[in-house]
Amino acid sequence: MLEYAKPLANLIDELKRLPGIGAKSAQRIAFHLLKSEAAEVDRLSDAIKHLKESLNLCEICGNITDENPCNYCSDPARDAKLICFIEEPANIATIENTGRYRGTYHVLHGVLSPLQGVGPEHLRIGSLLDRIKKTAVEEVILATNPTAEGEATAFYLAKLLKPHGIRISRIATGIPVGSELDYVDAATVSRAMEGRREI
Amino acid sequence: MLEYAKPLANLIDELKRLPGIGAKSAQRIAFHLLKSEAAEVDRLSDAIKHLKESLNLCEICGNITDENPCNYCSDPARDAKLICFIEEPANIATIENTGRYRGTYHVLHGVLSPLQGVGPEHLRIGSLLDRIKKTAVEEVILATNPTAEGEATAFYLAKLLKPHGIRISRIATGIPVGSELDYVDAATVSRAMEGRREI
Repeated sequence: MLEYAKPLANLIDELKRLPGIGAKSAQRIAFHLLKSEAAEVDRLSDAIKHLKESLNLCEICGNITDENPCNYCSDPARDAKLICFIEEPANIATIENTGRYRGTYHVLHGVLSPLQGVGPEHLRIGSLLDRIKKTAVEEVILATNPTAEGEATAFYLAKLLKPHGIRISRIATGIPVGSELDYVDAATVSRAMEGRREI
Repeated sequence: MLEYAKPLANLIDELKRLPGIGAKSAQRIAFHLLKSEAAEVDRLSDAIKHLKESLNLCEICGNITDENPCNYCSDPARDAKLICFIEEPANIATIENTGRYRGTYHVLHGVLSPLQGVGPEHLRIGSLLDRIKKTAVEEVILATNPTAEGEATAFYLAKLLKPHGIRISRIATGIPVGSELDYVDAATVSRAMEGRREI
C-alpha cells in the first residue's frame, strides 16, 4: 500500500483540487517543491496567501485590479465608447493577447444559467445602464463564449441594450484558424457556413 | 498591453516555475484561486509552507518520511532481504501502484552523470554496504530509469554489489503494455527483441 508522509499527502490532496492538475501532476509538483530551495517554496506559498489581499473589482468594469478604476478603464488611450462584454476576468488576457483591441471591457462574472440558478441579477449588469449613459457608449461587442449559456447571455444583453441605440455585435463563430473542416464538429461547420462573408 | 494586477501577476509567475505548468495553466489556476473560498486558498498556501517542516529522509532507505525509519523499512510484513534501487522518492509511488512489490527500497537521490558532475559520492550509496551486511540482503533489483544515466548507474551498482554474492537484477526494457511496435522508438524495439523470453 502506498502511503506518503502526511505533509506530502496533504499537499498532493490540495494540489489535486486545482483545475487541470491530476494525481500525477500533483505528485510531480509536490516532489519538485520538496527538492526546491526553501526561499522558492516560501515565495509560492506567500504569493497564494497574499493573492486576494490587495485585489478588488474595478468599480467600472469588474476587472480584478489593485487600482480603482483598473488600468484599462483609466487609460486615456483606450476608447471608452467601445465596450467588450466578457464572462470572466481571465478573458481579458485572451483578448489583449491579440494586440488588436483598443476599447474597454465589462466583466459579467458569469453567464445566465437557469439550471444552476444564475439569473440576470447574479451577473454584473446592474451598473451597466449607468455606465452606458455616462460615457455615451457607441458600440458593444458581446464576447461571451459560444456555448448554450454564453449565447443565451449574449441574446439577453442584446435585448437589454437595443433600446439605447447602441451598435451591438457578437463575436464570430466558425472554423478556428489553422484547423481543418474535417476536424471540427458539425455545429461549428454549420455556423461557419451561415456566417460566410462575400470576398 | 496585457497587465495583470500585481499580486495576480506575481502568483502566475511563481506557478509557471512548477513542472508541467505553462502560462495558460498558471493563469487558469490563479483565477481559480481568486474565485475560491479564502479557507481553501489558505489550506493550499499552508500545505506548501509546512511541506518540509516535519519531513526527513529515512535513515535506512532515503525515502521522504515523517517517521524514522519510514513505513516501508519498519513494516515487518515487508521482505527486508529484497531491495529495489530507485532514483527518486517519487519512484516508490510508481512501484507501489503495481500492488505487487513486497520488498523494501533504497533511494539513490539521483543518477551518475559525469556531464553534470554527479559522481558516486553524490548518490546515497555510502551506507549501502552496511545495510547489505546487516540485513543479509538476498536480492537487489536495479530500477533506475532506462536512460543513459540510469543504465550507467545500474551498471555501476551491479559492479559494486557483485562481490557480495547477492542476486542482482535489472528491470526489463521493452514495448509498453498496450502500445504498438510501430509507435515505439527503434532502441526500445531493439531492446524488446534482445530481451525476448521463450514462452
